[in-house]
Amino acid sequence: MNISHIEHIGIAVKDLNQAIPYYENILGLKCYNIEEVADQKVKTAFFKVGQTKIELLEPTSEESTIAKFIANKGEGVHHIAFNVDNVANTLTEVEEKGVRLIDKAPRKGAENLMIGFLHPKSTCSVLTELCQQPEK
Amino acid sequence: MNISHIEHIGIAVKDLNQAIPYYENILGLKCYNIEEVADQKVKTAFFKVGQTKIELLEPTSEESTIAKFIANKGEGVHHIAFNVDNVANTLTEVEEKGVRLIDKAPRKGAENLMIGFLHPKSTCSVLTELCQQPEK
Repeated sequence: MNISHIEHIGIAVKDLNQAIPYYENILGLKCYNIEEVADQKVKTAFFKVGQTKIELLEPTSEESTIAKFIANKGEGVHHIAFNVDNVANTLTEVEEKGVRLIDKAPRKGAENLMIGFLHPKSTCSVLTELCQQPEK
Repeated sequence: MNISHIEHIGIAVKDLNQAIPYYENILGLKCYNIEEVADQKVKTAFFKVGQTKIELLEPTSEESTIAKFIANKGEGVHHIAFNVDNVANTLTEVEEKGVRLIDKAPRKGAENLMIGFLHPKSTCSVLTELCQQPEK
């Protein structure tokens, strides 16, 4: 796998309206985008820190995996996303090495990225996302 | 606060000897340093991903906060560390804004960084570290 950088860190929060002021007023970051990802039942807020984004995830339904994560573990870091050139090829490569996949094929995520998740059973318990930048 | 980048992500693991092969063989990262931090009762392994390091943390004692974290929550992301110019000044600044501190003053961490932790009660449940690079 050829990772260039950490694309983002996904953080589960109960309420963006409470979390965004912390990231802006204490950490001094700027929320540059808020986006609803309907099929994941989340509302996301983005901040940039060097090469990496922080993606806050607020569940919009109790059926959201983020709602279930918060119910089980509380608010906190939900996943780490690595930037790769080609998600499809990388999913194939790691599956051949025995990694369990959540996504067998890339799908569209927030900010028009192509994404795919690896299962935490295969990634030392860190839910891991691969991201590919959209073509310009 | 003036954050330049995410200095590292700290990940709690039970056994470096099981985790390092995943990071090297699947993610394709290179472990460039293993260091024991005696006063935190952990053994750490470092990988570089773009601007950011991944710091794996294995407890060396059941008294380690990392051992307690794993017992309570399981393996996974333990903290996020932001790089700032001056940890002492930044701790003072955020305390004046009402943030609860774990470290009232900077102390020495792994890789000769000066570090200070903010309390997760004040940081939307993400244990947050500030890091300052050693003078060259």
